[in-house]
Amino acid sequence: MTIGPLDRGVLVVGTGLLGTSVGLALRRAGIDVQLRDHDAASLAEAVDLGAGRPHEARRPAGLAVVAVPPVVTAATVVDVLSHGFAEYATDVASVKVLPATQVRALTAEPGRYVGGHPMAGREVSGPGSALVDLFQGRPWVLCPDEGTDPHAVTRALAVARLAGAIPVTMPAADHDAAVALVSHAPHLLAALVAGRLAAAPAHEVRLAGPGVADVTRVAAGDPAMWTEILTANAGAVADVLVRLRSDLDRALAALGSAAGRDELTELLRAGVDGRGRLPGKHGAPPTDYATVSVVVDDRPGGQLAALFADAGRAGVNVEDVRIEHSPGQPVGTVELDVRPGADTALTAALRAAGWSVRD
Amino acid sequence: MTIGPLDRGVLVVGTGLLGTSVGLALRRAGIDVQLRDHDAASLAEAVDLGAGRPHEARRPAGLAVVAVPPVVTAATVVDVLSHGFAEYATDVASVKVLPATQVRALTAEPGRYVGGHPMAGREVSGPGSALVDLFQGRPWVLCPDEGTDPHAVTRALAVARLAGAIPVTMPAADHDAAVALVSHAPHLLAALVAGRLAAAPAHEVRLAGPGVADVTRVAAGDPAMWTEILTANAGAVADVLVRLRSDLDRALAALGSAAGRDELTELLRAGVDGRGRLPGKHGAPPTDYATVSVVVDDRPGGQLAALFADAGRAGVNVEDVRIEHSPGQPVGTVELDVRPGADTALTAALRAAGWSVRD
Repeated sequence: MTIGPLDRGVLVVGTGLLGTSVGLALRRAGIDVQLRDHDAASLAEAVDLGAGRPHEARRPAGLAVVAVPPVVTAATVVDVLSHGFAEYATDVASVKVLPATQVRALTAEPGRYVGGHPMAGREVSGPGSALVDLFQGRPWVLCPDEGTDPHAVTRALAVARLAGAIPVTMPAADHDAAVALVSHAPHLLAALVAGRLAAAPAHEVRLAGPGVADVTRVAAGDPAMWTEILTANAGAVADVLVRLRSDLDRALAALGSAAGRDELTELLRAGVDGRGRLPGKHGAPPTDYATVSVVVDDRPGGQLAALFADAGRAGVNVEDVRIEHSPGQPVGTVELDVRPGADTALTAALRAAGWSVRD
Repeated sequence: MTIGPLDRGVLVVGTGLLGTSVGLALRRAGIDVQLRDHDAASLAEAVDLGAGRPHEARRPAGLAVVAVPPVVTAATVVDVLSHGFAEYATDVASVKVLPATQVRALTAEPGRYVGGHPMAGREVSGPGSALVDLFQGRPWVLCPDEGTDPHAVTRALAVARLAGAIPVTMPAADHDAAVALVSHAPHLLAALVAGRLAAAPAHEVRLAGPGVADVTRVAAGDPAMWTEILTANAGAVADVLVRLRSDLDRALAALGSAAGRDELTELLRAGVDGRGRLPGKHGAPPTDYATVSVVVDDRPGGQLAALFADAGRAGVNVEDVRIEHSPGQPVGTVELDVRPGADTALTAALRAAGWSVRD
């Protein structure tokens, strides 16, 4: 075992639900975790829960995990890096284009940041709601781009893995389109359906059963937080909503016409199909991986995003990455760890895309 | 104890999920249950499960519970009554105006039928999915109108009560508007959200989590069955969808404008409010009731719907009803059983509405 990617410890900034849960998972894995929060009571509660020790700023942590509201994420990332609190930084904000754009505007070293988004949460908030296994089996998206330093990716991947999550890499714009589809637009629609109940007479609402309770469960989420999220991803969310409005118009036309039954059935059948595509429960990630080694030119870090993109197109998740590169040498090696069995497909796909993969 | 309302037994027509569950609950209560189904295998399975014995047609059952698809409900009700298989009939269809209208068109004795809708179901179907406690604590709507025979109401109420349900009475049109709001429109919206997933690339769908799984859970329902339901309640469903489309337009406008944040927050807050109005888990119904006795003129049956309507406006559920009336006498008494404590409010409300309530 060489030096681990998190041997210099992790600084968690923001000890709410997500930050405290990250701290708990990393402490369980024996990682040194320091905690910062502008709210002293929240910080003290997270420390008491065993999520880490208060930040001391003696020397930089290996990675900062910034877990603050989306609107202040980029400023906090840049602040943490510029103060030397950490060598690299990632975040947990639920949108990824906006913080990446803001980080690039605020610092000359945006490569020290890699955007992250663990796809987990609860309808309750605060350190007291944190769970050591909040991320277990859930996708944890990382969005490296061509400028991202590979160490940032390696360390963020290690956090995701130690938290029991399934690392998923994709470009920030793809992430934002995906979460608009699978999270933000559904949330808004659920809120609109629930909002209709707010305006209805009591004798109608009393007939509500488990079905509409399921449909509207997420609508209980904090309106202020969701306004931030939806505003930060407005374009991608609007794209989905425009399509949904068109589907709604089709449904209305079908309901109003004697010949509309087939159209209605078709819309309902698409719903069954879409529902059937939802991922089931993920198991725990494997502890052993297969490794695919790719020979790259003298900028191995700069090629990481392209490698991840090609792996993603092949349907393969990169679970870990290591860069072997001697300074002054013209070539290096990027080692990609993937689930056992996925290495064959990845090797074939990368070779087809023109990469030089070692046997 | 006088003669029970179900002492002449119950005939369940249609041994699917709902019919078999009704049979199981009535058998548990010691009621004689006969079963009919055009599908011999389904009938045999329901008999094997203990939901009742095969129908013998020797003498009329006291009540038929017709549990067949909505589109054939009215014809089956009239068929059962005209063959003398039962003295009275109710149904379990999820719309109520359509079968009532059809029954009136098909028979000269529509008063022998009272529309019913137990607000319970599962995403699976068939007698093998039946549950003895499927209706436990769920609303069971009955829709008597001015022509409904009180015996039909009394016997249908007894079925609901023995199944552990909460009886709720309201006009058929009110029922259909209510289920459009709390069930049919939410189902369609859930299907549209799920349908968007059907059209999406795999790397987007793989990020789906528990939130969108909740929102789209009901969308797994059978498209053919839901086409029937939505078509049978098209007007009321369209009314809700038009309002939802207007809300969606507001959300889209808000997302597209820098000044739209407050509007977005307002829509989300209405969602929180609506979600908060959903009824919690109902407890088991009480076994003791308080009785309110109303003196009525010589058509006590014809005044039942008006009494139920006034009780509903007072927020009181009528759990049971008995008619005391000697033939040839100009007046009679309607005894309404309600939850202990609700009798005071009901007495006051009925007196305010002009009814003669006994002390």
